Amino acid sequence: MSELRRDPIIGRWVFVETDESSWHPQDYEVAKRHINQAAVCQLCPGKEAQTPPEVAAVRNNGSPENSPNWLVRVVPNKFPALKIEGELEKRGEGIYDLSNGIGAHEVLIETPDHNLTNLADFKVEDIVNVIKLYQNRSLGLAKDKRFKYIMIFKNYGESAGASVEHAHSQIIALPMVPKYVLEALEGYTNYYSFRGRCVYCDMVEQEGQQKERIVAENESFISFCPYVPRYPFECWILPKEHASEFRLLSDDDTQYLARILKETLYRIKAALGDPSYNFYIHVAPVNCGGPKNYHWHIEILPQLTRVAGFEWGTGFYIIKTSPAVAASHLRKVDFNF
Amino acid sequence: MSELRRDPIIGRWVFVETDESSWHPQDYEVAKRHINQAAVCQLCPGKEAQTPPEVAAVRNNGSPENSPNWLVRVVPNKFPALKIEGELEKRGEGIYDLSNGIGAHEVLIETPDHNLTNLADFKVEDIVNVIKLYQNRSLGLAKDKRFKYIMIFKNYGESAGASVEHAHSQIIALPMVPKYVLEALEGYTNYYSFRGRCVYCDMVEQEGQQKERIVAENESFISFCPYVPRYPFECWILPKEHASEFRLLSDDDTQYLARILKETLYRIKAALGDPSYNFYIHVAPVNCGGPKNYHWHIEILPQLTRVAGFEWGTGFYIIKTSPAVAASHLRKVDFNF
Repeated sequence: MSELRRDPIIGRWVFVETDESSWHPQDYEVAKRHINQAAVCQLCPGKEAQTPPEVAAVRNNGSPENSPNWLVRVVPNKFPALKIEGELEKRGEGIYDLSNGIGAHEVLIETPDHNLTNLADFKVEDIVNVIKLYQNRSLGLAKDKRFKYIMIFKNYGESAGASVEHAHSQIIALPMVPKYVLEALEGYTNYYSFRGRCVYCDMVEQEGQQKERIVAENESFISFCPYVPRYPFECWILPKEHASEFRLLSDDDTQYLARILKETLYRIKAALGDPSYNFYIHVAPVNCGGPKNYHWHIEILPQLTRVAGFEWGTGFYIIKTSPAVAASHLRKVDFNF
Repeated sequence: MSELRRDPIIGRWVFVETDESSWHPQDYEVAKRHINQAAVCQLCPGKEAQTPPEVAAVRNNGSPENSPNWLVRVVPNKFPALKIEGELEKRGEGIYDLSNGIGAHEVLIETPDHNLTNLADFKVEDIVNVIKLYQNRSLGLAKDKRFKYIMIFKNYGESAGASVEHAHSQIIALPMVPKYVLEALEGYTNYYSFRGRCVYCDMVEQEGQQKERIVAENESFISFCPYVPRYPFECWILPKEHASEFRLLSDDDTQYLARILKETLYRIKAALGDPSYNFYIHVAPVNCGGPKNYHWHIEILPQLTRVAGFEWGTGFYIIKTSPAVAASHLRKVDFNF
C-alpha cells in the first residue's frame, strides 16, 4: 500500500509504495533502442565544420578553434529553440500573451569519443572539464542582460528524449525565469520566512541523520534519493554547505562534484541496466531582482516509467519503489574508481 | 523560429514553432508496440471472477452483476495506488509531511470487445455508455466526504503508459485537491477577479472567432488545439456554454460530447497514424470549501514526443508544430460517422 508524501519546497504530493511488494530494479523494463550514428555523427572530431563555430572549448596543446584535438566543445545548436538576436518584445493576441523567442541554445559536446556515451563511464578529470565549461558558459551567457535564467541539462538515451547519440549536454538561456524554478524559489523563500533556515540545508541535515536514502557522499557533496520523488530512483546531488553559486566552485569542490556525479550515474547504470536519464542543474536566476540566495543542486531522473494521464492531469506521481529501497539498491553496487 | 506563448490560466510559457519548417504529422515517429494480451486478458467477458466485484455496469437485459453480457463495467483496481478504508491521518517525518494513502482507484472497462482498443473506433452510443458511467462513479465517489477530487483519465497505448491492452479508463478519488487542479482553479479565479469573466468562456469565444485552431464543433461543444499546448497536436474539448457540472449533463449534451470525443480521437488517429494518447477530465473539487464554479473540460495529449530534461527542469515546453498547423492537419481528415 502507498503513503502520501508532500515535499516541503513546492507542496507536491506523491504516492510512495512502502510495503514489501515495492518494485526492485529488475521490475522496470529499460527501453534499449540506441541507434548507432557513428558514421554520420556531426559532433565527432574532424567534423568541426559541420557545426556552427564553437563558443568555448577545452583543448589540448592550444590547438586552434574549430580544429580537432579538443576534449570538450560548446557550439550553438544548429536547430535552436530560440534566436539570439533582437530584443524581447511582448504583445497580446486576444486573451493570450506572447513574445518573440529570444534566447540562446548551445550544445556541449562532452567527449571526442563517440562510443563513450554515458557520463557514468567518463574519467573524473574529463567530467571536471565538462563542469568547467558548464560554469564558463553560465558566466558568459549571464553577461547578456536580456537573459534571466541559464538552464544546463542533459538527456541521455532515447527514452530521455535524446535524439543525438554522441555524449552531449545542452545550455539554454531564457528571457524569463521558468515556472518550476519560480515555484522552487517561492517555496525556498516561504520556508525561510517561516523557519529562518534553508529548506535544502535542512534536507542535507535530515538525510545525513537518517542515512537510509543516501546514495553517495564525499567531503563537499551528498547524493540521495529524495523523500518525495517524481520518478523511481530519482537522485539529487546537493552541496553539503549552503551555496548559491554553482558557477564559482573551488577547484577542490569541482573535483568532488565530478566524483559524486560519476558515482551516482555509475550506480544508476549498474543497478538498473543502463537506463536513459535526464539531469538538470537548478540555480538562482540572473539579471533580475528576484532572490539571489538559493541552494543550487542537480536533479537526476532515471527514465524507468512513463508519465501518464493521471500525472498529467493532477501533478501527483505514483512511485512504486520507495526512495529508501531505491537508495539501498544503488548503494549495493560495487564502485571503486 | 519560435514564439514564446503564455497561457492565461496558470502562466505557463511555451515555445511554439511558427515558421514553415514546422513539423507535420509524418515527422513524428509513432511508437508501435502493442502487445497482444487477448489470451490472458482479465478484463474480457467470461473473466469477471478475476477482477474484484464490479461497482457499476451498463448491462444487457438486466443480466446479473459480475456475469458476462455487460457493455461497460467498473471494478476496483486489483493493484490500487490508494486504499479505500480508514481515515486520512497526516503526520510529519522531520521536515517532510505525509499521510496514509486513502482513496479509491477504479478501472472502467469500456467495451467487452478486446480488439476494439481505441475509443476513436467506438460507436457513439457506446461512448455515451462510457460517459454515463464516468458520471455515475463521479457522483457515487463524491458521496464519500473523505474524497476531495475525483479524477477520470485514460491512457491509450504503451507510449501513454497503458500496461493493459483491453480498452479502459481509470477513476481515482483523492483525499486532497491535486496541485495542477489547484493551479487551474487559482488561475480561473484570478482571471475572474480581474476581468469579471470566465477564462475558458473567453477561450471558447476567441477560438470561435479565430477559427484556425478548431478541430471539431457541434451544438454544445468545441474541440480545438490550445494556443499554449504542452504537446504537439494537443486538443481540448470544452462545453460552449459555461458549465461546472460534467456529472449532470442532459441526454442531448451527453450525445454531443460522445460525438465530439469520437470525432477528435478519430482525427488524431487518422492524421497521426494511431498514436498513443492520454486524456483527463478537469472538473471542480468536491466536499471542500474551494471554488465550485469552474468550466469543466477534457484535455487530450497525443504522445508524439518525449518530455526531456529541459521540460522537467523548467516547466517550459517546446512545440514543433504550431496549434494552427496541427488543427489544419486534423481538420483535413475525412470524418463521416
